[in-house]
Amino acid sequence: MSLSLLENLTSPGQLSDMSDTELKELADELRHALLMGVSSTGGHLASNLGVVELTIALHRVFNSPVDQIVFDVGHQCYVHKMLTGRFDRFSTLRQEEGLSGFPNPEESEHDIFKTGHSSTSISSALGLAYAKRLSGDDSSVVAVIGDGSMTGGMAYEGLNNAGNSGCNLVVVLNDNNMSISKNVGAISKAITRMRNRSSYFRFKDGFENFLMHLPLVGKPMYSGLVRLKSAVKTLFYSSNIFESMGFKYIGPVDGHNIELLSRVLERAKSLKCPVLVHVKTKKGKGYQFAENKPREFHGVGEFDVGTGNSNPNTQLSFTDVFGRAILRLAEKDKRICAITAAMGESCGLSQFKAQFPERFFDVGIAEQHAVTFAGGLAKNGYLPVFAVYSSFFQRSFDQVIHDVSLQNLKVVFAVDRAGIVGDDGETHQGMFDIPMLLPIPNVLIFSPSTGTELEKMLTRAVELEKLSCAVRYPRGGCISYTEFPFKNPSSDWDFSGDGANTAVISYGRLIHDVLPAAADFGADVIKLNLINRFESSLLDRLMGYEKLLFAEECYRIGGIGELLASALISRGYKGVYKIAAADNEFIKHSPLPSVKARLGLDSASIKRELMRL
Amino acid sequence: MSLSLLENLTSPGQLSDMSDTELKELADELRHALLMGVSSTGGHLASNLGVVELTIALHRVFNSPVDQIVFDVGHQCYVHKMLTGRFDRFSTLRQEEGLSGFPNPEESEHDIFKTGHSSTSISSALGLAYAKRLSGDDSSVVAVIGDGSMTGGMAYEGLNNAGNSGCNLVVVLNDNNMSISKNVGAISKAITRMRNRSSYFRFKDGFENFLMHLPLVGKPMYSGLVRLKSAVKTLFYSSNIFESMGFKYIGPVDGHNIELLSRVLERAKSLKCPVLVHVKTKKGKGYQFAENKPREFHGVGEFDVGTGNSNPNTQLSFTDVFGRAILRLAEKDKRICAITAAMGESCGLSQFKAQFPERFFDVGIAEQHAVTFAGGLAKNGYLPVFAVYSSFFQRSFDQVIHDVSLQNLKVVFAVDRAGIVGDDGETHQGMFDIPMLLPIPNVLIFSPSTGTELEKMLTRAVELEKLSCAVRYPRGGCISYTEFPFKNPSSDWDFSGDGANTAVISYGRLIHDVLPAAADFGADVIKLNLINRFESSLLDRLMGYEKLLFAEECYRIGGIGELLASALISRGYKGVYKIAAADNEFIKHSPLPSVKARLGLDSASIKRELMRL
Repeated sequence: MSLSLLENLTSPGQLSDMSDTELKELADELRHALLMGVSSTGGHLASNLGVVELTIALHRVFNSPVDQIVFDVGHQCYVHKMLTGRFDRFSTLRQEEGLSGFPNPEESEHDIFKTGHSSTSISSALGLAYAKRLSGDDSSVVAVIGDGSMTGGMAYEGLNNAGNSGCNLVVVLNDNNMSISKNVGAISKAITRMRNRSSYFRFKDGFENFLMHLPLVGKPMYSGLVRLKSAVKTLFYSSNIFESMGFKYIGPVDGHNIELLSRVLERAKSLKCPVLVHVKTKKGKGYQFAENKPREFHGVGEFDVGTGNSNPNTQLSFTDVFGRAILRLAEKDKRICAITAAMGESCGLSQFKAQFPERFFDVGIAEQHAVTFAGGLAKNGYLPVFAVYSSFFQRSFDQVIHDVSLQNLKVVFAVDRAGIVGDDGETHQGMFDIPMLLPIPNVLIFSPSTGTELEKMLTRAVELEKLSCAVRYPRGGCISYTEFPFKNPSSDWDFSGDGANTAVISYGRLIHDVLPAAADFGADVIKLNLINRFESSLLDRLMGYEKLLFAEECYRIGGIGELLASALISRGYKGVYKIAAADNEFIKHSPLPSVKARLGLDSASIKRELMRL
Repeated sequence: MSLSLLENLTSPGQLSDMSDTELKELADELRHALLMGVSSTGGHLASNLGVVELTIALHRVFNSPVDQIVFDVGHQCYVHKMLTGRFDRFSTLRQEEGLSGFPNPEESEHDIFKTGHSSTSISSALGLAYAKRLSGDDSSVVAVIGDGSMTGGMAYEGLNNAGNSGCNLVVVLNDNNMSISKNVGAISKAITRMRNRSSYFRFKDGFENFLMHLPLVGKPMYSGLVRLKSAVKTLFYSSNIFESMGFKYIGPVDGHNIELLSRVLERAKSLKCPVLVHVKTKKGKGYQFAENKPREFHGVGEFDVGTGNSNPNTQLSFTDVFGRAILRLAEKDKRICAITAAMGESCGLSQFKAQFPERFFDVGIAEQHAVTFAGGLAKNGYLPVFAVYSSFFQRSFDQVIHDVSLQNLKVVFAVDRAGIVGDDGETHQGMFDIPMLLPIPNVLIFSPSTGTELEKMLTRAVELEKLSCAVRYPRGGCISYTEFPFKNPSSDWDFSGDGANTAVISYGRLIHDVLPAAADFGADVIKLNLINRFESSLLDRLMGYEKLLFAEECYRIGGIGELLASALISRGYKGVYKIAAADNEFIKHSPLPSVKARLGLDSASIKRELMRL
């Protein structure tokens, strides 16, 4: 298929010169480019297929970057990237030195914020809009937010502040009736009610007049409207949740009709006040396999476009192991409940959900609620396990302190995607869970290195009386090891070596890089299982070494190496002590081995550090 | 006034045996006790005066502790404490070893959660309610939440999950039209619209029938209703925001009418589903001075009940200094905006608000939104200053990472109530801001010891190009010093001493305890101004000491002492190094000097540590 329109598009400003027919062709080209690109690089497919027409219409109506468009969560920005001069680099998506899979102002002035976490766009857009108002700038700010992101409390805080702001802010609700998991909760039902209300759009303030003046679609719509009017009048005019929040509401609008979308967005733009445009889209639109299985095509690796098949991943992932282990534990212990913030499948809980639906809670993208809700369950005798990605767990800092630790309640945190995540990059790195949890009283942190260890440590975490525990494990496959030297995953720490004068201390996945380096160099290896408590026996042993290297897949500041440094210096350790860890900087996307090398955390670098001690 | 009813009340179960007349007398006694108690101990007055009848009705209708009542924020729990067997200890409120000013399960089985942060109650109550359902327990859970707390995103996450849960959950919206500051945002306006809708209550599902069967109030209410019916019918039956969320809604109800409240709560209890009861109360009710100035009587020190006057606090507080300094800076720099999460007055921003209303943003109790909103303002050229209590800043962890630091934006965080807060106790201690900020890239942390230093460091933080900065300062008055030995608040660190072989390193308010201890002992003192960056010149100097004591008003794990330990051990420091800091445990309420002594952070303890080195 020819991609001549895309190839000749250097700026989104050109869209306004294109005919409707050309724009439809452009949409086809974009879908083709998405499929060709993502099937070879991997990435987010279904959500991008769903916003092709919406993104075209946004760039046709709004004058980016003078008008600023903020994409919530950000994974649906591929079309936007191709429309803003990055089509030629689309094949580098998520590759080393290539395009990021999320918006990135360092790539383009059309990307306003780096986004990767949910429900932030209304807040940041409102800040942008107020700044424009303060400086007398009349241009617009647009936040594009999915219905899934609307389940996050931040979105509500943003709406609440925006509604009566008078700012020139358009919130586009991209309603595909899905978050990554299926949407949950009352707000989702409310949005669905609005979605189903009528296939025509609704707009209180003189909307009939407005409809009449739409040159292309006005007439037929108006007659349809008159016919339906008496039936839907009450619904049309009764309040909805967004109007309660002070927004003008337009919608629902067919999100795959560029002409209609353009008219509606023009109207929203002209109102110069907070407007919510409710757009109905289909996730995976235009690619049958993705339409049928939008969840599976949310985030994908390489796949065959013709068959929709990807290479089956034969390697068992840590997530898989967690899913099996928690199921087995829940069969024995009826107190165990599983909680997820809209990531049930991604966190390995599908089987748990099927087998124990009454003990499975998908709370929406609401990590704050998830933890406090867990506190409530624990208070009344249950044992909640909250499975969450490390980077999204950051949202729960205050709740772990205030609603779990302070209450002396027992909750287990299954912290997935801990450490380096590779391709997803900066917003998704799991680098803050350790610094976040370390200062909090009454929380033990376990860090397994293998699938077997994950199972054992999760069991220990569940069975430990009273104390809350976090079990943190990385993204990706379990490394299978024929001769793993550490045999005591249930102990707090473990040892491998011949009594050298140098030891490397490490934990988690990194131990696999440490072992060969230490073997080459001739150093002992000490592996932490429980990483935030040091037994005297451990410290006693460490005091005997002349040289210590602490290697960790974590930030240096706030990491375990510092904690141990403090313990050793307090004991009067006089030897050499060095920490090999990531500098506290955001870590760009690249495949895992490449990131490790860059951070000095591959085997070769660790060996070099040992030589330098 | 006789308090015979209160004195004879040993259990809330006795309330159901009391007549309506007795209950009214009890309300009077409670108000009297509140006034007598709080005027001598200090504490939260206006909010407690406002919930006297509501709390009586709750305990009359619900069978605590089988039915569980969770108080959001918790500062309105004094009446509850007196009704649940703690009247005799009410004079010990907020005193050493005395009653906590917040709910505390260690005090009573009637206190379910320790609460002190806002907007958590619906989430925790839903957890409690689901647990009851899972275990086949038919009793109720009640969350009592103010309209101010409804501006927090967590409340929305909770409502969203609760609405369709089918759980036996009653949310009592205590609507006094105030948070600590005046309520802001769309949700507050929506609640006010409901509040003003009708003085009679509204309940779709057979409410007329229900009204008719209220023996005391039904008849007159019903006729009033019929009269008003046609006028308010649309309003009555149109959806409100809580019904959109899936709740049954009853209200608004006069929150000072015990009989009516009891009937309504009985009805809510009987429904066995998620119900929102909208109760209108008056903050400060029954005490003229507090009714007129509810904000001033929100949190009070000792005062004269007859005149409403408290001893004027002549000492300038750090908060006052911040308020003046930011005003002066904003006069010169038009980019400066001030943001508060419903704490404008408490954070010293009243004058800023008056002088620069267009640059002042009260976002409601929405610390997540506040930071991301600040990111938006900064992106478009403004310089936002977010003034926030340390303990509430915990809510913003992810947003500081994702929406400020990752974006390379400059925001200034004015972190008030950093360190030990004294009387407010566990939930309000400012012990986590340093551990939270340390690992985050691109954030400098300044810690002034005096008012003059606060002004200087805030100026430096504002004027520094690009880097985000936190300036953290404690609750309470600035210590005035005739001969403060540190003269360079604009330097990163400062020195006082004669070249001893021992040095104490410290920062912030604690320097005032360190100085006399060091003088007595004969140690040098090194004071950090910028506490999370160590210049080589500093480390060089430290390497020269035989013994170092790091003293900090922070937790040991996650504190600056560990950061320095790591830097020193990496440099091969061979001397003695010890950290005097708080153990990572929650810190109970007591006056500041008493807490300091308990934690080993008073001057005498620091001297003892020096002797022990």
